[in-house]
Amino acid sequence: MDFTIRAATLEDCKDIARMILELAEYEKVSDQVKITQRDLEQDGFSKNPFFHGIIAEVPEQHRTKEGHSKVGYALYFFSYSSWKGRAVYMEDLYVMPEFRGKGIGKALMSKVAQLGLAAGCTQLNFAVLDWNKASLDFYMSQGCFDVTADLGYHCMRCEGEQLERLAQP
Amino acid sequence: MDFTIRAATLEDCKDIARMILELAEYEKVSDQVKITQRDLEQDGFSKNPFFHGIIAEVPEQHRTKEGHSKVGYALYFFSYSSWKGRAVYMEDLYVMPEFRGKGIGKALMSKVAQLGLAAGCTQLNFAVLDWNKASLDFYMSQGCFDVTADLGYHCMRCEGEQLERLAQP
Repeated sequence: MDFTIRAATLEDCKDIARMILELAEYEKVSDQVKITQRDLEQDGFSKNPFFHGIIAEVPEQHRTKEGHSKVGYALYFFSYSSWKGRAVYMEDLYVMPEFRGKGIGKALMSKVAQLGLAAGCTQLNFAVLDWNKASLDFYMSQGCFDVTADLGYHCMRCEGEQLERLAQP
Repeated sequence: MDFTIRAATLEDCKDIARMILELAEYEKVSDQVKITQRDLEQDGFSKNPFFHGIIAEVPEQHRTKEGHSKVGYALYFFSYSSWKGRAVYMEDLYVMPEFRGKGIGKALMSKVAQLGLAAGCTQLNFAVLDWNKASLDFYMSQGCFDVTADLGYHCMRCEGEQLERLAQP
């Protein structure tokens, strides 16, 4: 099946918001999603954006019965390793279930890698849920490694009231 | 002991590079550090910087026998959660051993939290090594939680030849 990968624009935010929710439903955490189309428009498409996006699109004749032709996306932002320097972080990688197995996920991830290398990055980082064996296998097959399992890194977070308290001088 | 926390400038890159190496030695991975003072100057202090830094400084009379008055630092950058929106990522937090236990680490982390909240972030994220019990205890005492242990997230990475290969269309 033909598909194209291109940079996301403001007009894609509605579909990105839809697919973020689909991905969260797959990860069984849709109640955690607070993001809206409007947030994505503001945070990704104003001066100094907090993220960038790419979209996978199929021709009209292949769109879903609901009418969707935007069938996958990746969100990424630039980050930094104090050991290795410039890095790119892939926040999300998603392909709608009925469009999987066609190389779309690989093409999206490959594009993020290209964009990272072009910006001088030497690492592509992301996170995966330990029960998500299908994704883990896919990433391993692409030459990725598990930093948590191999090097002992744990992701840590502070949010909500705890973050407010931490910010008190 | 008096100390001040302030935004890092280009002139701090020499000391940041020194302390990055000290931190890596503590983490037993100094052979992994490829970053130089020049990299930090280019990547953190040009247009569209890849990171921001803050510095902890003590008065002249408290400087080390080697003459260092810049005794701690944190590096951070803005990131994005597709569920919760704007986030801040703390890449490094370091205080020289002889200056620990004086609230400098807490003050640096608190500053990163303040800067994040001021930018509309709702999460502070970072990583910690699982054997680094002292740091884990400190972060837990500040209201942080272990996303890997609690939610099953693993940090993943692609780099080097694997990243080049992934970027091939």
